[in-house]
Order: sequence, then C-alpha cells, then structure tokens
Amino acid sequence: MARAQTLMETLTVHGFSPSGNCHKVRLLLEQLGRPYRWVETRSDIGATRTPEFLALNSNGRVPVLVREDGAVLTESNAMLCWLADGTPYLPADAWDRAQALRWMFFEQYSHEPYVAVARFICGWTPADSPRRAELPRLRERAHDALKVMERHLAEHAWFTGAHYGIADIALFAYTDVAGHGGVSLDAYPAINAWRARVRATPGFVALPDPDPEAAALIARSA
Amino acid sequence: MARAQTLMETLTVHGFSPSGNCHKVRLLLEQLGRPYRWVETRSDIGATRTPEFLALNSNGRVPVLVREDGAVLTESNAMLCWLADGTPYLPADAWDRAQALRWMFFEQYSHEPYVAVARFICGWTPADSPRRAELPRLRERAHDALKVMERHLAEHAWFTGAHYGIADIALFAYTDVAGHGGVSLDAYPAINAWRARVRATPGFVALPDPDPEAAALIARSA
Repeated sequence: MARAQTLMETLTVHGFSPSGNCHKVRLLLEQLGRPYRWVETRSDIGATRTPEFLALNSNGRVPVLVREDGAVLTESNAMLCWLADGTPYLPADAWDRAQALRWMFFEQYSHEPYVAVARFICGWTPADSPRRAELPRLRERAHDALKVMERHLAEHAWFTGAHYGIADIALFAYTDVAGHGGVSLDAYPAINAWRARVRATPGFVALPDPDPEAAALIARSA
Repeated sequence: MARAQTLMETLTVHGFSPSGNCHKVRLLLEQLGRPYRWVETRSDIGATRTPEFLALNSNGRVPVLVREDGAVLTESNAMLCWLADGTPYLPADAWDRAQALRWMFFEQYSHEPYVAVARFICGWTPADSPRRAELPRLRERAHDALKVMERHLAEHAWFTGAHYGIADIALFAYTDVAGHGGVSLDAYPAINAWRARVRATPGFVALPDPDPEAAALIARSA
C-alpha cells in the first residue's frame, strides 16, 4: 500500500550497534537529520530469533525499520534506497541510480558475505568456534571484492555517481572495519583515500568500537 | 554520467542461458518488448575470466548489459531496476518500490546463494566434485528462504506490490528450478500457485531446459 514519506515522523530502527548493516541505516538517518528511535537488538545472542522479532521479520535479521503506522521494511540497502529517495544521496537520473544499485547488490552478494562474515567470526564467535576454519576462504574472497572496489576508485571518487551517497554508505560500513576480520587494507590506497573522504562528509558518525570482549577475540584472531 | 533511456536502442546482454540471473534480464526484456542482442557467455567453462570479459566486468560475472554507446551495467537486479523504471513492472510509489527492493536484496543474500548454488553444483560440476559436500547445508538454507517466501505469499499475490513485477522476476528465476538442486517445492502450495501465476503473465519465456550433460548430472544428484 502506498504511504507518503513524512519527514517529521519518528522512525524506529531495530538494530545491533556493532553490525555494519545496521550502522548503514543510522549513518544515513544522522546525515539526513531524520528523527529516529534505536531499539538495540543483540543478534549475537539470539534476540532476532524470538517469536516477537520473527513477527517483525520472518527472515530473522536486523536491521528492521518500523514506521509510526506500524509498516515494516527489512533489508538495510532497501532502507537506504527509501530514505534517500528524493535526496542528494541517491541520483535522480535512472542510469546513475542503476549504477548505485549495482554497487549495492555487489555489496550484498560479493562483499558482505566475506568481509562482514570474517569480522563476525573473529569478534563474535568463541575462540574455539569451528567456524574459524572458514576464515582463509572468506579472507581470499574479501580481497577479491576489495580489488574490484580499488579498480573503480582508481578512476572515480564515489560509488553512488558524481557525489557521495548510499552506495558509498553501503560499501563503507564493512570495508572500514575489514581489519577486524583479519582483512588488511594496506594494499588499497584508493580505498583508503575514499575512506577518508567518507569520514569527512557532513554528519558522519563512526561505527562504535567493539566492546572489550569482542576486541579481545579480534586481537586473538590476527 | 546521466544517459536517457532510448526505448528503441538495441541492448546487448552477455549471458549464460542456463543461469537464472541471466534469464531474469531476458524475461523482462521479452515482456517489455525491447530489442536486444544476446551474447552467449559460458561462465561454466571460464568465459567470464578472460581478459576481454574482465574488461567489461572486473567482478567476472554474467550478466553484463551494454548500451549502444558502450556504457556498461552489471548485477542482474540493478538491470531489472533500470529496465523497469517508469513501467508497470516497478511501483512508482517510493515505499512500494522499497518493498520490491527488499525482496530483491533478500533474493541475492538469503536465496540465490543457496537455491542457485545448489543447482549449479548438481548440474554444472563433475559428479565427483568436492563441492557436493556443501549440498546438505545449502539445501537447508534454501528451505529457510522458501519458508519466508511461502509466508509472504500466504497473504499477498506478488512480491513487487499489488502487481507482478521485477521482484517476482528476481525470485522466480531460481525458485522455479529449485528442484535441479535437490530442493523440493512440494511443501510450498503458495509458492506453486505463484509460479503458475508468473508463467501466465504476458510475454513469459521459460528458462531453457538443462542440456543433456547437465540433465544427467542433475538426475544423479537427487
């Protein structure tokens, strides 16, 4: 059902603060100056598998966005598209918008399943988790994705088109903390210059540092 | 750079015919009645890893869409968004469009990596491939995704909003042939009713049947 976007409505975001997918939404809301309420939802300890949560999102994942009338939207990148619609964070031209979406689908298919999952395993699973056996393959694929980004950034300043926008937000989220998963960014000068440009955008907010328990696990995973 | 869409231009699609991701684009082009040229690209035997192909898409994947002026778009779902822009296959309302995108991101993150990859391993890797060890886990996750779809279809006719559109095309592609990967659709009556509705849409074209070699491998994988 069509629902007009009311810029003054307070949106509710169910999210886990250390999650890059969740932070994407927070970053754009902050940069847009939109009012929102954050409901901390610890996906690392099963909070997305409760009956109450599954009623919101049967796919059992954060973030979930809820409007004042109760309408629900899932998938972080779909939220970015909706929030950015009609703003400078998403190009108005259809071809440019398709290119931004291209990078957002790349992020979810070729980047996040490696860069983000390596980070999750390093910081949010026990030191003896059998999942740690996946790390060499995940890191190799993570570098494949970073090389594609590096090649683009050698010739372009941004992923969203001529200006910073939601494809940059989507790709920045986990790229910036790839090191947590043992994926070094040292070999990617163009990515590092882009990271600095993203950090300098108005209203930028950083992902919170991992809590001490996660930080200790990350330090042991190097 | 902004480029207006010219409905009469002949688009070139580099694609592998048995690939659901590639077929998505063909299906929409057929339904829109748009002229296009198909360049068969056998990703199963390395045709996406040649220097010529990597110059088109450094991520080494099909499909790739090329315009008459040489401009390139990758990512099947980004192509669907661009081609459907301004047509009944994508809602004009921003919230409805975000819901369609939600299902397209779901497809690439929670569905395709299981449903499509199980099918690929069964039909397009040797009978003794070590990748066959991944099948039990892939099939389990495939059913997780199908359950989410079944729940939606119990209350809605389509994934794109009130009408058939690109989220349906994106999800139909691999769902319809899930059986090739040993993922039975028997337990999903709403999905099967939706498959029949999709097949009845004007201009529908089916994915080609697997060639005899793939069909024999699929038969051995049950």
